[in-house]
Amino acid sequence: MNTWLHEPVAVCDMDHQRAAYQHQAVLTKPLGALGELETVAVRLAAMQGRFKPQVDNVQITVFAADHGIAAAGVSAYPQEVTAQMVMNFASGGAAISVLARHLGARFEVVDLGTLATVPEHDNVISRVIAKGTEDFSTAAAMNADQLSRALKVGFERIEQSLSAPPDLFIAGEMGIGNTSSASALVATLLQRPARELVGPGTGLDAARVEQKAQRIQQALDLHQVAADQPLKALQCLGGFEIAAMTGAYIRAAQRGIPVLIDGFISTAAAMIAIAMKPEVKNWFIYGHCSDEPAHQLLLDHLQVTPLLKLGMRLGEGSGAALAVDLLRAACRLHAEMATFAEAGVADKDSTG
Amino acid sequence: MNTWLHEPVAVCDMDHQRAAYQHQAVLTKPLGALGELETVAVRLAAMQGRFKPQVDNVQITVFAADHGIAAAGVSAYPQEVTAQMVMNFASGGAAISVLARHLGARFEVVDLGTLATVPEHDNVISRVIAKGTEDFSTAAAMNADQLSRALKVGFERIEQSLSAPPDLFIAGEMGIGNTSSASALVATLLQRPARELVGPGTGLDAARVEQKAQRIQQALDLHQVAADQPLKALQCLGGFEIAAMTGAYIRAAQRGIPVLIDGFISTAAAMIAIAMKPEVKNWFIYGHCSDEPAHQLLLDHLQVTPLLKLGMRLGEGSGAALAVDLLRAACRLHAEMATFAEAGVADKDSTG
Repeated sequence: MNTWLHEPVAVCDMDHQRAAYQHQAVLTKPLGALGELETVAVRLAAMQGRFKPQVDNVQITVFAADHGIAAAGVSAYPQEVTAQMVMNFASGGAAISVLARHLGARFEVVDLGTLATVPEHDNVISRVIAKGTEDFSTAAAMNADQLSRALKVGFERIEQSLSAPPDLFIAGEMGIGNTSSASALVATLLQRPARELVGPGTGLDAARVEQKAQRIQQALDLHQVAADQPLKALQCLGGFEIAAMTGAYIRAAQRGIPVLIDGFISTAAAMIAIAMKPEVKNWFIYGHCSDEPAHQLLLDHLQVTPLLKLGMRLGEGSGAALAVDLLRAACRLHAEMATFAEAGVADKDSTG
Repeated sequence: MNTWLHEPVAVCDMDHQRAAYQHQAVLTKPLGALGELETVAVRLAAMQGRFKPQVDNVQITVFAADHGIAAAGVSAYPQEVTAQMVMNFASGGAAISVLARHLGARFEVVDLGTLATVPEHDNVISRVIAKGTEDFSTAAAMNADQLSRALKVGFERIEQSLSAPPDLFIAGEMGIGNTSSASALVATLLQRPARELVGPGTGLDAARVEQKAQRIQQALDLHQVAADQPLKALQCLGGFEIAAMTGAYIRAAQRGIPVLIDGFISTAAAMIAIAMKPEVKNWFIYGHCSDEPAHQLLLDHLQVTPLLKLGMRLGEGSGAALAVDLLRAACRLHAEMATFAEAGVADKDSTG
């Protein structure tokens, strides 16, 4: 049904990668002294196929949906908050709305289905699949058709962006209960017990964390999804917003758009995308490590180190948004620093 | 001689700190979900004495000087590089020059004395004390008068800034050999052997790191400075640029200007300032943890956690400059996010 999923992932430009690396070696600093900034500048040059990469045009798309599992009390917040936060995104008061303004980013919110109905709003793109997923501890979160439609929403947002292709894409998410869904997905693909992965989400105490872990383990035992079944995992345990992120990540990689991954939920969606099409990982940069304990474990599994670690646990794309200025600074340094020759500065161990 | 050193440090505004904290608690996010960004927004509100802190006007001052110890081969670069880099700062090609432009910061370079003479340049403030310090492994790095003058240069740069007081001050440094000086200062104030603190600087191999450690231990044994003698440590083991940073940090704290500390050298200067006047630490925010191994040890000693850890080891103020946008984002989030009441969003554990 989703034939687009079979299209090839774009290939990074190795000539520009090499040229960018060589350029970093002659800038007036010891090679490597700018640490991760050098790495991302070289990677962006490879992804964008240009000697001087840039991150001027950033698109941030927040995908929102409710989760049936939330009725089981796995979150500190009532489910109505998902729809309320969609309106808060749209009217500019949420953290990611403020950060999008701060960055001058294109910003859009996609409603994939909340328990409470989201009122019509110019800034909300309505792609409602259902009023949230089923409770995945007792049934599959969604049926095959719903999964296909959710993935396609992500595809569509990337296609839509191509009229003015962004230099960088960030997906954010909102969905009360979605750390439970992400934990279940990670437990499945890493084949770990739920207890190792479940954390406090947006603020549960120890007793409720334990209850959440039991509920998720019940789901894992019910669905029995194998590590090499990412789509089945997404259907049984995922959320509409997580599936849409997965679809957007895959489509961005197919279209050659660099992706900045956010926190735990976002990295779980990235993990699903990588399990489906490993080459997509060449297009991913990791923005931050969240305070949700399983995020570090997942990052270790993916063998990646994110740019920031600020104790954040908000989602929405907020951690990735904060990392954008680091990428911009990396690009400016790459483009504007003088070389040793230009500046008349002696290089390492040269005789003075 | 430096009577200004005895003036009191400014006091943070606890009413604004409390108000800012309470405001963070009603913004549309779980309390603490923005991690370090909440902490710095509240601290900046206390430092700036305003409900909505801001980091619009940033001053970056780079202090440069040569070190006699460099003649002993403790650096991978020839000493001429200090003066060459001063010109590179001034003409806009160095990393910190690019970052200052990126931030729209006020940027100035102060020459405190380099081995090679720095040509006159509109963008270089000449405050030459001598053509570098003495080799501190065989003599005191500077005499008492030179120490006093170097500290006063830092004082002067802060006083100069007051015509349009900056929201934030960053000191950067350049001086071939100054990781040796900073290592010796830290070894002294923490009373540790040199070998525990000496690292590769801007790029030494293992054999030369060992040689550098021996040279520094020789200096520690020669000067026998106690942990509670920060000014004597600065005179015997410091550099003109490190002393100027110390002076600037103390004066900024006296004038109530928030300071963003950079990497290893910068944190060593901050450590000296704190040892002299412990209350100055209320005015310090730490920008990044550098790749120089002793920096983490020093940060642990000061019991502080910097915002960034990007594997950088450049100095110049570059790590601090990269953290500025995090402070700006923190201020915008604090000022512009909607409250739960404003957005009509249910708070934690409210009954839906």
